[in-house]
Amino acid sequence: MVSLNKRCTFQVGENPADERTLTLSSASNEGYYISLRPFVEPKGSESEFPYEWAFAGSPKSLEAKKVDELRDVINFNFEFDTNVHLNAENTHRGVIETHWKKWESGLVEERGQVFPFGPDKQPVSFFELWQPIDATRDEFVHISEKSADQISARSIVLALDEDNYKGLIVTVGKWTQGILFKKDEHTAKGISFLRASESADGKITTLLKYGVDFDRFPSSFLGQKDAELQGAAGASWKVVESNV
Amino acid sequence: MVSLNKRCTFQVGENPADERTLTLSSASNEGYYISLRPFVEPKGSESEFPYEWAFAGSPKSLEAKKVDELRDVINFNFEFDTNVHLNAENTHRGVIETHWKKWESGLVEERGQVFPFGPDKQPVSFFELWQPIDATRDEFVHISEKSADQISARSIVLALDEDNYKGLIVTVGKWTQGILFKKDEHTAKGISFLRASESADGKITTLLKYGVDFDRFPSSFLGQKDAELQGAAGASWKVVESNV
Repeated sequence: MVSLNKRCTFQVGENPADERTLTLSSASNEGYYISLRPFVEPKGSESEFPYEWAFAGSPKSLEAKKVDELRDVINFNFEFDTNVHLNAENTHRGVIETHWKKWESGLVEERGQVFPFGPDKQPVSFFELWQPIDATRDEFVHISEKSADQISARSIVLALDEDNYKGLIVTVGKWTQGILFKKDEHTAKGISFLRASESADGKITTLLKYGVDFDRFPSSFLGQKDAELQGAAGASWKVVESNV
Repeated sequence: MVSLNKRCTFQVGENPADERTLTLSSASNEGYYISLRPFVEPKGSESEFPYEWAFAGSPKSLEAKKVDELRDVINFNFEFDTNVHLNAENTHRGVIETHWKKWESGLVEERGQVFPFGPDKQPVSFFELWQPIDATRDEFVHISEKSADQISARSIVLALDEDNYKGLIVTVGKWTQGILFKKDEHTAKGISFLRASESADGKITTLLKYGVDFDRFPSSFLGQKDAELQGAAGASWKVVESNV
């Protein structure tokens, strides 16, 4: 089953709850995931890299454990992490243990701790609240009993791993999110992002277009398993998961 | 402009954030408002009256003040308040001052204090988070730049005030919510609620049907200003606001 979650709120340590981003987290049938967190109104120094954070990975980079019908624990060890790639100071490194709980209303809370000052230093607690969205729609429609089956929704993952670049693109239903790192460029110039949605008539709208290497993303994200899709400058993306 | 807001989270005092209800608050063009807060999974004693709370009122029962472009203060003095009608212990009486702030993401926070133990006793802080919903749709679709104009959406208010009953029904776009109190019956038997939505083909689906006097609600909520709509047992509702 694919999932698409839109974040409602983010609360760190003792700070009041807030949400300054339009964060979407996608996960494919096989467990590839990507979360892009662009600021809605970047301020001051945020303008150069207008993202709170972004991460992504393959199913190998997480360990999920069902606690009970409503609760899960997921340990992430991201393969793509903008904080790591940018060598950002005072940000977490290594596995993050996250605790998930589905509320009666259908919203999903996520709680955990990060260790921005090092693994043996003071932890910082965080709380995030997620609204599950129907991935088969191109608007933000809450999942309900009337929603289309998210099990048969489109689930396609493209991966790229070359000498200089690594990237991942996850399409769930109508929504595509992609991340591309230039391996040796540890500044904002080494990061590109893509977000796109497809409307009912098949038209693709690009919602996020970020990075000097954006044109290395392909212009189509559909393909059968093992197919290759081309971006600019010889970028070759391999379909590593597909149900079409 | 009408508004329809779906609550994402509710946090009282030092309790963790949670959301056990499907709360919708509607407000008409002229400022009639109603908020129904049914539990999604009522537990134990909640089953008899499976509502966290409900309130409603006319524009005369609130005072709104714009603080700046993003902030408002609204003082409510509800005309309909289930806690008051039920003489519920340890619940607030009188004006509630609420502070609203629109987040960059479009969500809206509400903060305030209630005085459940009396006006000169310890206050209890609360935090609620609201997602603005497109009232012209019959699903929960987030308001966006692509949404239909909420200024021209349907806005109709029905009021009833008889010897034994008082009620209010607010329709905004596709959504109708109604409340009816039997004046001298201060138990759950004196309270009825209605929630309905209209699909694109004009079919009305009743989503909440509560109370021994439910059939006193009319079966249609459309009418021109000053028209009268009939419910069962001679209940006569007057259209006090209408843009149709």
